[in-house]
Amino acid sequence: MNVLLGGRALPHRTVAFDRDRNAVLLIEQRLLPHEFKIIATPDYRHTAEAIRSMIVRGAGAIGATAAYGLAQGAQAFRGRDLDKFTAHVQTVYQTLADARPTAVDPVNAMNDVLAALRPGQTVAEQQALALAAAEEFANGDVAHCRAIGEHGAKLIRNGMRILTHCNAGWLAFVDIGSTTAPLYAAQARGRTFHVYCDETRPRSQGATLTAWELAQQKIPHHIIADNAAGHLMQRGEIDLVIVGSDRVLGRTGEVANKIGTYTKAVLAARHHIPFYVAIPLSTIDWRLKRGRDIPIEERDEAEVLGAWGVTPAGKRTYIRVANPASPARNPGFDVTPPDLITGLITPVGILKPAELWKHRQSLGHA
Amino acid sequence: MNVLLGGRALPHRTVAFDRDRNAVLLIEQRLLPHEFKIIATPDYRHTAEAIRSMIVRGAGAIGATAAYGLAQGAQAFRGRDLDKFTAHVQTVYQTLADARPTAVDPVNAMNDVLAALRPGQTVAEQQALALAAAEEFANGDVAHCRAIGEHGAKLIRNGMRILTHCNAGWLAFVDIGSTTAPLYAAQARGRTFHVYCDETRPRSQGATLTAWELAQQKIPHHIIADNAAGHLMQRGEIDLVIVGSDRVLGRTGEVANKIGTYTKAVLAARHHIPFYVAIPLSTIDWRLKRGRDIPIEERDEAEVLGAWGVTPAGKRTYIRVANPASPARNPGFDVTPPDLITGLITPVGILKPAELWKHRQSLGHA
Repeated sequence: MNVLLGGRALPHRTVAFDRDRNAVLLIEQRLLPHEFKIIATPDYRHTAEAIRSMIVRGAGAIGATAAYGLAQGAQAFRGRDLDKFTAHVQTVYQTLADARPTAVDPVNAMNDVLAALRPGQTVAEQQALALAAAEEFANGDVAHCRAIGEHGAKLIRNGMRILTHCNAGWLAFVDIGSTTAPLYAAQARGRTFHVYCDETRPRSQGATLTAWELAQQKIPHHIIADNAAGHLMQRGEIDLVIVGSDRVLGRTGEVANKIGTYTKAVLAARHHIPFYVAIPLSTIDWRLKRGRDIPIEERDEAEVLGAWGVTPAGKRTYIRVANPASPARNPGFDVTPPDLITGLITPVGILKPAELWKHRQSLGHA
Repeated sequence: MNVLLGGRALPHRTVAFDRDRNAVLLIEQRLLPHEFKIIATPDYRHTAEAIRSMIVRGAGAIGATAAYGLAQGAQAFRGRDLDKFTAHVQTVYQTLADARPTAVDPVNAMNDVLAALRPGQTVAEQQALALAAAEEFANGDVAHCRAIGEHGAKLIRNGMRILTHCNAGWLAFVDIGSTTAPLYAAQARGRTFHVYCDETRPRSQGATLTAWELAQQKIPHHIIADNAAGHLMQRGEIDLVIVGSDRVLGRTGEVANKIGTYTKAVLAARHHIPFYVAIPLSTIDWRLKRGRDIPIEERDEAEVLGAWGVTPAGKRTYIRVANPASPARNPGFDVTPPDLITGLITPVGILKPAELWKHRQSLGHA
């Protein structure tokens, strides 16, 4: 999508590969929204470190970064010994997998790359295959998001006021994003609409990343406190809600997403406002039986007790907002039941959450 | 209530009067929760400035401050000329009324003081009457809060987990508070319970003021992001909700309160969790006909776009959190309909919001 630089809108991907330098190109997301910077990782160890330190975050984006990182490591091998090459690739794989040990996307993406390395070929041939497979993974991520956009754009009519929560935008994927895909596709069709971004405390991804994306794309929007969405719905100022998801249960249709999503779904249901969840198919978990079994991570209380930002003097800092002697609880995610969800916007169409299991074969469940 | 100073719990009122110095004693609330400081206003102009600059805030607290300020101004008059004294008192009244022109509490409180000044008395007698009336107003505020606590404490059983939103604690009144009164009364009865304080973005009064109060009183509590309450309710971790109110409509039972209150009421109703609103009778508006007619103030967008707090180096600052190019909307209040409210905890007992009008004569409506 676009980035506004010096008044001009330049297209960028969140993750890309520079063949000449054998480097992965990443947006340094920890500097956003206050600064835009592209970094080039000089070798696969730096690529792993970029995943670990959250220079890049988001399911699709870290998957593609790991895939490119594996290809980058393979490219860097010097020599013709296939056994040594295979051992080297295994080291690269493990280094990248260890960068975010609980994330499933880097491993899935690298397995796609490994599957492309056919036995009996030369090192040079395998190096070329690895890079092609990484490119294919990244392009596949973009194609899935584009398809989500095609289906989701049908929901957006002129003049609509759309609420979003957190960020599942192009910064979380290789490009386009999931939650944001219908917005970008509707904009491309010439439709005009307004977005309300929940700030999404405690990490404020709505106020920082989603708002930054929409500003780059020149989509009219306001940031609101998470507390304000209910009031706006009550006054008839929200027409549609679109959120993303970290995990959708294929068996029940329950949706795990950033803390606060459930609250917005309850409010939307009360006000008969359509509530959609935009996801790639890789988000569907076909194994877990009940939403209550989804582990809800309790994150660092410092997130709730303060905030990160920039002082009037331009200095980046964390500030403590809360009473110094008080502790906080910080559940990172919540689970929304399927009866509160109007539909799932997927690359293959808009589905009712309760129908996932019925369509499991066409949705890629083995 | 208590303030912990040097490891000892010392009792304090939010607003008090020092007869020896003819000064109003106020907690400098803008420094809380990071610093505790008492200031003494040397004359009525400083008292008015303390109201204007929000050193003191909250309905009961600014009412008592204005009442004391009027008595303070009267005390400072030198001479025996009753006409000059009356003109001076009128000047003091106007100065204090102008400090927060939209607030009704300072004017109501000062009218109580003026009503005590009977014609035909000497300046010295009127000065004494003014001070006595101001003390009576302040003590009445405390008595009302204590009565709210007596009624509300009956709702709190051992082991309960109680959610609060914003701050209607003793810092907003002369002492004890409205929302917090049932907590303090239950604690005095030896009951043990746990409080979850919504941080209450964008101004974070829950994370700062309510959490500070509870910490001083040694009541176990956690701060949570406003987004987390729905999740805790869904997991059965909230048993009771108590909030305050800025205005309750006597004709309809609708409750205006800090933005986000309506959202918590919707969530509580879904989970069959009792939702109470603690108020003094002065909060009831007998005139307005519909909640939709309550003006909802749109506050400064800077509140939503950033936060106030203390850096790791101990420096107080505002930081910009949000994307620099993005605007915000910031409605300050919302309106909760009576069907979502289990009861109003008032000084005269717990009432259903829809029954206010029926009881209007016993509730002081002329």
